[in-house]
Parts: sequence; structure tokens; C-alpha cells
Amino acid sequence: MGKTEIRTVGKVSFDVPASEQDVLHSVFTGPAGTAFDSELTKVVVPFAGEIKDGETVKIECLDWTGGQIGNNDSADDIRNVDLTRVHYLTGPFEIEGSQPGDLLLVEIMDVQPFQDRPWGFTGIFDPANGGGFLDEIYSSAAKAIWDFEGIFCTSRHIPHVKFAGLIHPGILGCAPSAEILDTWNKREAELIAANKLERKVALAPEPLSVHAGSAVGTLKEMIGREGARTIPGRPEHGGNCDIKNLSRGSKVYLPVHVAGAKFSVGDLHFSQGDGEISFCGAIEMAGVITINFKVIKNGVADLGLKSPIYIPGPVEPQFSPGRYIYFEGFSVDEHGKQHYLDMTVAYRQTSLRCIEYLRRFGYSDYQIYILLSCAPIQGHVAGIVDIPNACATMGLPMDIFDFDISPSAPAKVMDMGACAFETGVKMGKVMAGGKNSEYSFGGGLTYKST
Amino acid sequence: MGKTEIRTVGKVSFDVPASEQDVLHSVFTGPAGTAFDSELTKVVVPFAGEIKDGETVKIECLDWTGGQIGNNDSADDIRNVDLTRVHYLTGPFEIEGSQPGDLLLVEIMDVQPFQDRPWGFTGIFDPANGGGFLDEIYSSAAKAIWDFEGIFCTSRHIPHVKFAGLIHPGILGCAPSAEILDTWNKREAELIAANKLERKVALAPEPLSVHAGSAVGTLKEMIGREGARTIPGRPEHGGNCDIKNLSRGSKVYLPVHVAGAKFSVGDLHFSQGDGEISFCGAIEMAGVITINFKVIKNGVADLGLKSPIYIPGPVEPQFSPGRYIYFEGFSVDEHGKQHYLDMTVAYRQTSLRCIEYLRRFGYSDYQIYILLSCAPIQGHVAGIVDIPNACATMGLPMDIFDFDISPSAPAKVMDMGACAFETGVKMGKVMAGGKNSEYSFGGGLTYKST
Amino acid sequence: MGKTEIRTVGKVSFDVPASEQDVLHSVFTGPAGTAFDSELTKVVVPFAGEIKDGETVKIECLDWTGGQIGNNDSADDIRNVDLTRVHYLTGPFEIEGSQPGDLLLVEIMDVQPFQDRPWGFTGIFDPANGGGFLDEIYSSAAKAIWDFEGIFCTSRHIPHVKFAGLIHPGILGCAPSAEILDTWNKREAELIAANKLERKVALAPEPLSVHAGSAVGTLKEMIGREGARTIPGRPEHGGNCDIKNLSRGSKVYLPVHVAGAKFSVGDLHFSQGDGEISFCGAIEMAGVITINFKVIKNGVADLGLKSPIYIPGPVEPQFSPGRYIYFEGFSVDEHGKQHYLDMTVAYRQTSLRCIEYLRRFGYSDYQIYILLSCAPIQGHVAGIVDIPNACATMGLPMDIFDFDISPSAPAKVMDMGACAFETGVKMGKVMAGGKNSEYSFGGGLTYKST
Amino acid sequence: MGKTEIRTVGKVSFDVPASEQDVLHSVFTGPAGTAFDSELTKVVVPFAGEIKDGETVKIECLDWTGGQIGNNDSADDIRNVDLTRVHYLTGPFEIEGSQPGDLLLVEIMDVQPFQDRPWGFTGIFDPANGGGFLDEIYSSAAKAIWDFEGIFCTSRHIPHVKFAGLIHPGILGCAPSAEILDTWNKREAELIAANKLERKVALAPEPLSVHAGSAVGTLKEMIGREGARTIPGRPEHGGNCDIKNLSRGSKVYLPVHVAGAKFSVGDLHFSQGDGEISFCGAIEMAGVITINFKVIKNGVADLGLKSPIYIPGPVEPQFSPGRYIYFEGFSVDEHGKQHYLDMTVAYRQTSLRCIEYLRRFGYSDYQIYILLSCAPIQGHVAGIVDIPNACATMGLPMDIFDFDISPSAPAKVMDMGACAFETGVKMGKVMAGGKNSEYSFGGGLTYKST
Repeated sequence: MGKTEIRTVGKVSFDVPASEQDVLHSVFTGPAGTAFDSELTKVVVPFAGEIKDGETVKIECLDWTGGQIGNNDSADDIRNVDLTRVHYLTGPFEIEGSQPGDLLLVEIMDVQPFQDRPWGFTGIFDPANGGGFLDEIYSSAAKAIWDFEGIFCTSRHIPHVKFAGLIHPGILGCAPSAEILDTWNKREAELIAANKLERKVALAPEPLSVHAGSAVGTLKEMIGREGARTIPGRPEHGGNCDIKNLSRGSKVYLPVHVAGAKFSVGDLHFSQGDGEISFCGAIEMAGVITINFKVIKNGVADLGLKSPIYIPGPVEPQFSPGRYIYFEGFSVDEHGKQHYLDMTVAYRQTSLRCIEYLRRFGYSDYQIYILLSCAPIQGHVAGIVDIPNACATMGLPMDIFDFDISPSAPAKVMDMGACAFETGVKMGKVMAGGKNSEYSFGGGLTYKST
Repeated sequence: MGKTEIRTVGKVSFDVPASEQDVLHSVFTGPAGTAFDSELTKVVVPFAGEIKDGETVKIECLDWTGGQIGNNDSADDIRNVDLTRVHYLTGPFEIEGSQPGDLLLVEIMDVQPFQDRPWGFTGIFDPANGGGFLDEIYSSAAKAIWDFEGIFCTSRHIPHVKFAGLIHPGILGCAPSAEILDTWNKREAELIAANKLERKVALAPEPLSVHAGSAVGTLKEMIGREGARTIPGRPEHGGNCDIKNLSRGSKVYLPVHVAGAKFSVGDLHFSQGDGEISFCGAIEMAGVITINFKVIKNGVADLGLKSPIYIPGPVEPQFSPGRYIYFEGFSVDEHGKQHYLDMTVAYRQTSLRCIEYLRRFGYSDYQIYILLSCAPIQGHVAGIVDIPNACATMGLPMDIFDFDISPSAPAKVMDMGACAFETGVKMGKVMAGGKNSEYSFGGGLTYKST
Repeated sequence: MGKTEIRTVGKVSFDVPASEQDVLHSVFTGPAGTAFDSELTKVVVPFAGEIKDGETVKIECLDWTGGQIGNNDSADDIRNVDLTRVHYLTGPFEIEGSQPGDLLLVEIMDVQPFQDRPWGFTGIFDPANGGGFLDEIYSSAAKAIWDFEGIFCTSRHIPHVKFAGLIHPGILGCAPSAEILDTWNKREAELIAANKLERKVALAPEPLSVHAGSAVGTLKEMIGREGARTIPGRPEHGGNCDIKNLSRGSKVYLPVHVAGAKFSVGDLHFSQGDGEISFCGAIEMAGVITINFKVIKNGVADLGLKSPIYIPGPVEPQFSPGRYIYFEGFSVDEHGKQHYLDMTVAYRQTSLRCIEYLRRFGYSDYQIYILLSCAPIQGHVAGIVDIPNACATMGLPMDIFDFDISPSAPAKVMDMGACAFETGVKMGKVMAGGKNSEYSFGGGLTYKST
Repeated sequence: MGKTEIRTVGKVSFDVPASEQDVLHSVFTGPAGTAFDSELTKVVVPFAGEIKDGETVKIECLDWTGGQIGNNDSADDIRNVDLTRVHYLTGPFEIEGSQPGDLLLVEIMDVQPFQDRPWGFTGIFDPANGGGFLDEIYSSAAKAIWDFEGIFCTSRHIPHVKFAGLIHPGILGCAPSAEILDTWNKREAELIAANKLERKVALAPEPLSVHAGSAVGTLKEMIGREGARTIPGRPEHGGNCDIKNLSRGSKVYLPVHVAGAKFSVGDLHFSQGDGEISFCGAIEMAGVITINFKVIKNGVADLGLKSPIYIPGPVEPQFSPGRYIYFEGFSVDEHGKQHYLDMTVAYRQTSLRCIEYLRRFGYSDYQIYILLSCAPIQGHVAGIVDIPNACATMGLPMDIFDFDISPSAPAKVMDMGACAFETGVKMGKVMAGGKNSEYSFGGGLTYKST
């Protein structure tokens, strides 16, 4: 009588390489089949376990790099991370009774770091190896280590900041059907083929280092050649959405496309800001997620869904609206070029405005870039119809700082130390800010601080 | 002893055409000088009044169309609106002691509709005359009238919905300097010149119907030829930001670029959703705004600002996080084409997902499109770094409906009436939704509702 | 087509004495019949107007003293207030179709001060004339005048404080039946008869200065002799509840006891703290309330109500939980005497703890007593079962101060001016606080500040 | 480099009786010295461990009954609980460098149940053995078991309810000085001596079954004779405050009265409503609390404190104000007797109003009594000055129910099962409610539900 301890369906080890653990699959370098199977081709990652309809279970997860990043003061591990060996997800799990056309109702009862690993990291990637939202401006690899104490985190690399984690999984989703996988590969290949930018715009399937759970030999090879990589979220199943408030208590409604659902989860975040702008921008961690699963028969059509929906949990950290500073950004880029209703450009400008504001207190731009990536920053689509300018806003909660950042007076510059950098960074690359900085406007006008 | 009634510095009339009121200037069809002057060229709209540093005043405003839209059940006035006669702002006001490089701290003490005009409107514009975010799909002119009772609004055109207004000005800002005006005109002209889309991407200065306050003759003509139109917000001064929670109690920090600041305000909204997606998407109204003004000397450089910032007020309507349904959208457009980290595309998809969800209850797509434009919808930049997909989310508060819209079961279709349409709309153009609708996924899979 | 201006059913004048306005009734000095009639005895205040089921109307109200308090810097008017001429309510209104056993659903659409009277007052009453929660300690009459600018208020008598009003009516309710009126008079008379305290514990009917709307002559006399005074709220109908968040957007469910309901309202507050501790403790004002009325047939029994219930509105000022300082109080009084689970004693101690904390910044105890009465203070019943100590908490929002009151360091004493006092107050009566104050504990231990 | 696992300073066992564990002290039956020492008399519980200034540690706690209550469906264990063997606290801990006059800043970083004990209980005590706030009406022993899944709890004994825990310690505090202990014993003895009620009003020191950590022999005996029991919170140190939102992230400022502070903690609650009305009214559990300790030198006088203060954490469950039903209660008791400004009576009435409302859905009064004790109910001091009636309010969050409890229509009675009862309870003692219940008002009026 009375419930007993909650069952753990996926256990990971820190003593064995991720690529040798059957409960994991490295989809970043592997096929869609790594996380998600295909009934037709059978090029699928084998099930890692079974979960009953209505059951609550615990699932353990490695951090998204599978342990490549250390708790130290150098970002060399960030610079050198092997991006064919990341995004190790736990699963896929068979959900009892689920069929294509059903919805899988995933209620996130809790997410916790491992008791004996109370830390995580946020990284800025080298543009040549991952990059990020502002990598044309901030091109050095850098990182910050965050220590967890209960609900709070702090970093020796970004002093005078403390906040409660809005803890969540970056990735969750069910496997695609063969048809959907085919659609993904086709439409992303078209983008790659048409690319004229000097950067990668999407990632094709990558057999190198693929990890497909217990699959070996020919099956594993085929998975490597066909499976979709899991860097992007995708409309048909969710996946790597990186939604900051899909946190404790959230209910997510996931379309099921194959028998058994084949649910996978990973990429846990202690906290993240809207946009996760530095790419490895959340506070990445290993940990345990507790989930309740329910199958809603025929839910996809009954609820009219083409993409997942979710209802947030009730325990988000609360800041008063009046304790946010909101920055405005517009679709005029940093070179003064006007773009047409481009929200991506507008949000980039908003980020830069926030960096300019905070650097006055002594933080380096890299510290702020990291902070905006992982703290509970609100990123809003403000106006998207007033040609030619899209307007984005970014809300920065004042209460995460232990000093006053309100716009009341010239900032007092403090000693803010430094985040971790890759070896050989010339500090001249790192913009400093502070007194005597100049602020210029479009027309060439320049105002000096006093 | 004791304060007396608050001074009204700008009074408008409903009995005289907007174009004949000296306290207004129609910047939409007029030069930047309409709202914003140039010290060098002197092609400027004359001051409409003076406000002391530290003073709190009331400023009356017309709705943004200057009264072209009626409280009736036809959208013909929307279809036929004269877009050279809109955006009548009140001002510009001279703020005592303000100089270029200062910040103008604008605290919005209150915004109210006129007591004897307790109504507003939301419009969907014809693509040939204004358009909107989803005009390729929803191309008929339509509108809804909203009735105000105290803090709440309801609409006979969108039944079963009631919400408290997050009331705010769509436009506020100080005048540009001559150099900034020149920058605007140049960079927007370059966008227009490079345009290959079959739609307008920006609007050049437009002498036709310009209204420049008390300016007449040659000055007015010159203003018409040079002044920037006020449809877009712009980074250097804010302007038409259309930010939904820049509401009662907000403090906005506006850069000053000319002596006296030349502050203008208008385009009052009873409520708006993030993005204001239907273009005339807020609940547009005439009313009175109460503002306290303070000058922060040398504030632009001291605070490190290139664009306005603001701190929201404390009285936003509060919904529990757990009473929102969040929809996810990705940068794969409705034709299945993959875009590269395009947040604008992603937000459009999110809007469509929300429309598909709500149409099951019997609302027409047009009703929902209007509702998402003007109700307090949360639009978030969720993920902007996971190539190739940007992910946007849209949060829909369940508590604005008087029936249960939670994702618990097949929807019960209700009689939802209709919004107002332009004459001659074939209802076949209006998607209906409901039972037996089909939902297809990328791979050609289709699930039917039961 | 389209709604027109909202009808005003009760209009008050500032040019005629309250006692001569038929739309008012002074229940404080009058019979229950003043506000509330009796079907049997017919000793009732005549109806002041009629309101339809479903209608929204505006009702004007005087402040609760009927205009006895001036916008000046002396509290002599507070000391001398004539308490037989207060609590002028507007009404009673006949609500179409309402019968005993129904519920009247009162939705508060808005409350506003009069445009040309943007001010209110908070008073500390002389113990001989009204008193208050802490009148054994603070026995001088005092007051603060508050200026309103939109949603915010400030006071020249309590500097460095600004907050948004949680605006609400102190009193609303329907008339009692004859039986209920009889019950009130009987049970309160028993309390008066048994009183051994040296203070008034309840107020019997008071013919002197009674104002009974349009009633004159014998009827008015009878009303004066029988009617219940409206100082207290009462369980059967609500009345003077003084509930701080029964504000804009609230829905109140009021039992109906007589045909036509006989609804009355008054005693508007711009803001109030939980407890309204100084008696005239809210920010008292004249103004206009906009209400929607609906009759719920048979609602009393269907909803199981013996007292009113309400659902608050959505626009309360929001402070982060982490921006409150909570003070703890216990049922040990200031003389060291232990009381048994007495929440009234506990809440008084909590108030004193808060006064001791804030006086360190230079405020006088009287200023703080006023502030705790009228600012949005949270007063909670924390623990009520752990014999012998009840525990109450009081939450003080830090964000209403324009300086830092957080418990981080010894307070810096500022010049806080003074509130208004009655003539002849010796400042020695006013405790000051600040550096070198002593804090003693139960055991005689005393710690000195540094 | 990098932090390691957080140190656990107090470890408890479930295999050894609480009374045999040196890290515990049963203060309920023991002297103040049990938790709190006296430098003069040296009749003190020995230190259980040492904690550094600035350190974060984990402390394990038993539930407050030390394990007497089982996860089963009978309340016999509640009826028979040995109240001389409860309130086992963990500690006392020596906090490095703390001296009398300092403040101990206790920041609650987290509270969690033990992984392998995901459940708790709420009990209604027999009036002869503990009682509770409504024990004159509800006199049977009863209980509900709550299952924890992550942040949420549910109960097989109270169906259709689920909520996120506002998890917190019921008891924390530093030891009293000898003088303070003497004050406690004296003032409580006076209350006991003067008692004329037919119930216990306070508890004198109780040598029987006292547990004083590692103390044995004469010392233990002396502790039993002199130590204050920990049932009540007390103003000088806090103690058993049972404050519901002194939860994760809260900062508590505790006066230090003896060298080393002698900090103790226990009585963990998964959730509690304001008032904790059923006495054992929280969801009682065993678990682990993570605390950061900082010493603020001379803080008592510098901050002007006579009792603890706290600042809540930022992660309270959020409900919209508009999703609460508030019940009003007045100081007229259930027998119709008028009390003078008695908030305790008023809050009792508020509780009864809420019970009457909820019983219409099929819950028994006992189920509701338990629910109001442990769910996140808001209990407010509304009005405390309007003679003779105090007014209390109780806010019930609608979102904890999985059906609609809003006041919209006659309730639909559901099958709600039952809570656990002591053996031999006649169900006739258990009020049922529902259709055909009668609701009577003061004057003898009765309305019947339809």
C-alpha cells in the first residue's frame, strides 16, 4: 500500500564512453534512426526500454557533449569539441499502446542534476566549429562553469550574478516515420545545395562516429547514412526545441508517428535564455528527468496539431514586470544595412544593445554574451508588420545581479574577472567597455559618456 | 496647497478633420519633419507646446487612422482606408532643457480611452492596401469592433472572449537630427531599390496629404518631400515600436537628438498581441495618455544606449504560466520549404498553428487572426541557433475565453458568428475548420479527426 | 450600432452637503434601513435608482467622510471629524428581477478618482474619536495626503515612496432583511452590554445626523433608531469588508435578502494594506465606480454561500515574491504577556516589527503606521494551531521605495520630513528611531546598533 | 577545481529509533536545551556538528512524528500518536563565529523528500490528543496520504486534486539564551495558570521521553525539566513558525542568542496552507534541506529586529489572481455570537465557508478540512479595525482541481471516495453536503438548493 520509489528506465554511466552505452544514441552524428526509426526501412535504433501508458519514470541523461567538457578554467575543450560525438540522447523508449496519429502527453514532473555533479557549463563556440548567433563579432571559444546549490546557480567566471534555474530538457520527441524522415532529408538537402553563405546552413546525415544504441554492423552503418541529425528542432516532432520554460510541471503534447512512439530525451539545461544565443548557450548538464507519460488516442487530428504544443509548469521564477529592463532591437544590422521585417536581425541587434549596456559595469562582452544565453532572459517578437523594420525586445531581469543595474546613473565599473578562454586568445579581441566608450548613431552623431 | 488637476497640453477634436488640427501631424504621409525636425535644414514641424522637466501632463490622441474607421459591421472602411492620411501624432512638444545626447525619461502614468468613445477596432488589411503578416493566406479586408467597459473589452464580432487591456501607445519618440533623418532615407531607399519581391518593402517620403502641424506652404511641401514616414519603428529613436507591455507604469528612456527633444505620441492601443500580426492588429482607439517627463542629462552615453530601453509597469494582467497554451513554430514555411534560422518564418508558422487549433471551436480563421493580433499573446524567440531551424513560440492565455480551450478532448464546435468583412467577400475564401478537417504532416501522412 | 457612453446612475455633488443629496445615505449614523431595508417594517431608505440585470453602470461616490477632510497639512480635521456624519453610501439601487435567495454578481469593471480631484488621504484617528489598531501606542491624530497621477500615488507627507493603487470600494452590499437586521442589532447589543474594556466595542443605532436618502420625517426618525450602522462588515451581506484586492476586475457574489436587492456602494480606496490598520487607513477618495450587475437566481443555496465570495481581478500590481520583506509576529503582546492563539495580537506585533524596521531610515513611527495602512502590504495568517502562539506575517514590498530597504546593512538615516499632525502635538510623543536605538528581547537582553 | 558534492552535516536513519540518534533532539517533550542551550546553566543539548560561515550544507530530517505515521488507509496511528515523542529536530549545529547579537542568514537552497520515500501525510488529530483549529466540529482522527512525483503531489484519499509543493521547513531557529528560556517558561506558565478553557492552552516542559541528542543521565533529566517545548513558534527566535512560503530560495534572518548559534531544523513540509489549520495540517515528510549559512555581525541591532524576518524565494507556484475564489469570514462565531475584532474567530468562519462551498461537489468535510490545511491556500487579514467585526479572507486556487469549481452553477456531485479514519468512526459524524443541503442566515432565513 502506498507508492514506492519511482522506476528508473534509462541509466547512464560516467565510467564508460557514451558511445558504448546501449541506452544512448548519438543522433548529432547519426541517422534519424538514431533517435527515431522508420517502420518501412527498419533502419532504426533498437528500443532501449518500455514504459506503460500512465506511468511515471526517471530517465538519466548525459550532458549534450557526452562529457567532453570539463569543470576547469580553459575553453580549449570547447574549441576542440568533437561535434560528431555529441547530442547523446537517452532512449528510444517504447510507450505502451501508442500508434501513429496519437499524441504522447509528456508531463515533466521534475528535472535535477546528479547529486554528485552539481555543476554545468555554457560555451561560446569557435565559428569554425559550431559558431553561434553573434559569431561574426565574438569569434573566440569561451566558457563559464556554473555551480549548483539547490535551485540556484552561480559562476566563478561571471561574478555578481545568481539565479534560480528554469530547468528543462533541450530535446524531447518521438521518432519520425519513414516518410517524415525522407521529407527532412530532402528539404534540408535543398537548403544545403542552394547555400551561398560562407557558413554551414544545415547538416546532412553523418555516418562518422554515429552511435545507434545497441545497433551494430550494417544496421549501424545504414543509420549513419540515412538518419537525420538532431541539431535542429523540426516541426513534425519537436526535437531540439530549446524552449526555456518547458520546465518542471510542463505538459508537452507530442505527435506519434511510429508504433510505440520511440520517445527520446536529452540535452538537459539548468537554465537558458530565449534564443540560447551562444549555441551551447544553456547551462548544459547531466541529470535525471522524471516524466509521466499518457497516450491520447487519435490526438493529432482531434487537437488539430501539426507541431507540438505545451502548457508551462507553475513554478517558473517570478520577477516583477517592473524589475526587467527591456532592450529594443530593429532589423537594421550593425553595418547600418536595412533588412525587410527580419526578426532574426532584429533579435541580434537587441542582444548587442544589452551587451553594450552591461559592459559599462566592467563585464567583458564575452561574459555578457554567455549570460544572455543562459539566464532567464525574455526574448519577444514585438512588432513584425511595420515595414521595413521588425522590432524585437529582450527583457533582462535586474534581480539576478547582486548590485544595482537600473538605468539611474553612469555605471560604476567593477572588477568582474574573466570567463574561460581558449589558449592564445589575445585580450585585445575581447571588447571591454566602460567609461569613455563612444556611442554613435546612424547619422554619424557620437555622444561620449562622462 | 495640494495638487490640482493635471494639465492637458494637446487637445484634439472629433469635429474638425485631423489634417486641420495644428496639434497633430500626419507623419505616415509626411516627412520625418512632421514628427521630427532637423536643426540644419529647418524643414521641421513647428512645436505644438511646451512641457517642463519633471512635469506630468495629459496628451489627447486620435486613433491612428484619424477617425476613418467606424463602429459598424462592414470592413469597407478598412479596405478603402486612405493610407496617406493616417498616423496622426500629437506633438511635437518641446521638453524644457533637453539637448542632444540627453535621455528623455517618459513615464506612462496612465492611458485611457475617451469617456464618450468606449470602443476600438482591429483590422485585417487588403494586401493591395497595407496587408499584414499572413496576407498571402488571408487576403480579404475584415475587422472587429471592441467595446470597452472599464479595464475589459469584448467584441460582438468575436464572441466568448473577454480580456483586460494592456493599454499602451503604439508610437512615441523624439525627433531625429538632420543626420539621422538622412541616414533613414538613404538606407530605406537602398532597400526599396534592391527589392525584388512583389510587395512594398518600405515607404519613401510621400508629399501627398502630408500634415505638418501648423506648417503651411513651402515648408509643408519640403516636409512632404524629405520627412520619414512613421510606419516603422527605427533604432535611433523608437517611434512605432508597437510593444504590447509598454503600458501603464512603464518608464521609457528615449534618446534626444534635437534641442527641445520634439516629443510626439500617438497610435494608442487598448491591447495588442506580440507581433501585432494583422498590421492594424492592436485594438486601435482614440484616448488620453498621461505622461511624466524627466530629462537625464548626457544619458545616451552614460547609459550606453543606441536604442530606447524601457522598464514595464507593475499592473500587467496576470495569467498563471500554467494557463497558457504554447504553440511551436519552425522556419519551414507552409509550402514545406526549409529556411535558414529565419525567425520571421518561424513566427508565421506559430501563428498558423494557433489558428488551426482554435478554428476547431467554430471560429473562422479571420476571427482568430484578429484575436491573435490584439489579445495579450506572448510571442517568444525560443531557439535561434540550431541550424537550420529557428523556433518561435506563441503563448495563448486560456483565461480570455469563457469556455474551456484546453487540449483535453475533441473540440465542440460553437456558433461563433462572424467578424465584419468588406463587401463582396465570398465566404469560400474564409476557412472554417472544425470536425473532419485533415491535418497533414511533411511526409504526406494525414490524420483525420473523429 | 455599437455601444454608447456608459450610463451614470448615481451622481454626487461637491457643492451641496452630503446630507442633502437624495442619492446618498449616511449609514454610519443611520439605521440599517439607511442602506438596507426591511420588507416587514418598511422602515427603509427609498430606492435611489434602478439598474437592469446585465447592465453596466457608473456610480459616483463621495469619500467616506463626506468631504470633511481637506488637502492640507494639518490633522485637526481628522481629530475633529464628526463620526455621526460619515460613511455616505450611494444607493440603494434596485436591481431588476432580484429576489431573496438570489446572488447578485457584481463585476467591478473600473474604479477611478474624479478627474479634477486627483488626491486622497489616510488618517490616524484620536483614540477618543475613532481610534485604530495601534492607538494605545500612537494616540495623536495624524494624516497624509496622497497625490494621484494615473495609476500611481505619492505623498508629500511620506517621501521616497510611490506605488500603483490597488483601487477598490471599501463597502458594497445588499440590504438585510428585517430578520437579519434584527439579528445584527441583537448580537451587537449583547457585545456592548458585556463590554468591560475601556473602549467602544460596537456601535448601536444612532439617530443623530442620520441621512436616509429621500426619507424625511417619521420614516427618517425610525430609520435612525433601528438601522444598523455600517462601520463593520457583516457575514450575511458583506458591507464594509475593506478587502484590498477586491479591485478592478473582481467579481463579487453578494447574497440578496430583499426584493430588488437594494445595492449600495461607497468608501472608495485608492489603495489599502491588509488590515487597514490605522482605521481610516486606506487612501480614502471620492470617485466613480463602474459595475456590471448580473442576477444569479437561487444562487445562495446553489453555491452554498453564507457570506459573500469574490474572485480578484487580473491586474493587481505584481511584485516578485523575492522583493518582499516578511515580518513575523506572535501572540505575545508588547508587555510580554502570552495570549492563546490570538491572531489579532499576533498581527499587531507584526505591525510593530515592521515599524521598528523602517524607522531606522528616518521615518517617524506615525509615517510608517500610515504607510502600512494604505500601501499594498500582505497580511497573512501563518500559523494558528501551535499552542499557545498564533503567528502572523506581514509582507512589505521593497519596490514601493525609491531607495534600498533590503536587510543588507545598517540603515542610512534620511530626512523624511513629517506627516501632518493635529495642533499641539508634542514631537516627543512621536518615536523617531535611527542610530543608537536599543532592541531588547524577552529575557532582558539588549543589543545596540553600531 | 570546481565544486564537489555538497557536504551532509546531519544524517538520519530509518532503521534506528529517533530517540537513539545523537543528531536528533526531541524538543517537543524536551527542554529548550534540547534544541537551544543556555550558557549560564549549561543545561544544553550538545552540539551535533559544525558549519562554517558561508558554507552550504545538506541536513537530513525525519518527519515531525519521528516515523510514527504509516503509508496506509487507517488513521489509528494518528489517533494514537505519542505526543511526547515528536518534533525530532536535527541539530543543534554550531555556526562558526556567531555570537549573541548577530543575525544568522539562512538561505534555503532546496528542500527535497528522500528519493526512496516519495510520500507524506496530513492528519486531523483527536481533540483529546492534539486537536486542531476546527476540532469542536470535526472531532474524529483522520488522515490523507500524499504521493510525490517530482514537484507535484496527489492523494488517493482526496481525488481530483493535484498541486505543486511549496516545500519548506516548519521549524528552524537558533537556541535561546538562559534569560530568554526563562522568559518563555514564565510567561507560558502564567497562561496555563490562568486557563479557564476546557482545553490545553500551552505545554509546560515535559521530562517524559525527552530526547536531548547525545546527552544522557542527569543532564538529560535536567533538560527535560527546564527545556521549552517546540510546539509553538516564539517571537525571540522563530522556531515552529509553519510559514508556507518560507520555501526554496527564501532568506531567513535569525537572531543569535548563544555563542555558536545552535541552529536546529526539522518538521519538513511538502506543502501547507496559511494557518495549517488541522494542526498536523501540512503534508508532513522526511527529507533533506540544503542551506547556506552566513553570519551578519551585530545584525540584530543594526536591522532593528525583535523577531525573525524573511524574504521569500522566487519559485512559488503561480496562480493568476483571477483563478482564486476568496471566501470572507467575520468574527461572528458559528453559534451566532459576536466577538470583538477577533481575527482567530474570523479565520475559523472563513474556513467553514470554504468547507460548505466544496462539500457540494461530493467531498466530505474531513477531506476538505485536510485539503485546506495543506494546499497552497492564501489566508489574509483583510480588515482588523471596523468594530466589532474582524474580516478574514481565504483564497482557494481553482487550478489545483482537475474539474471546474468556479461559482457558475449548482455543483455536480462526484464520487470522492474518503480519507482515512480512525477505527470505529461512525460516518454519521462525517458531514456530507451536496444537493438539498440547507443554508441558513443569521435571521433564521433559509434558502434551499435546487
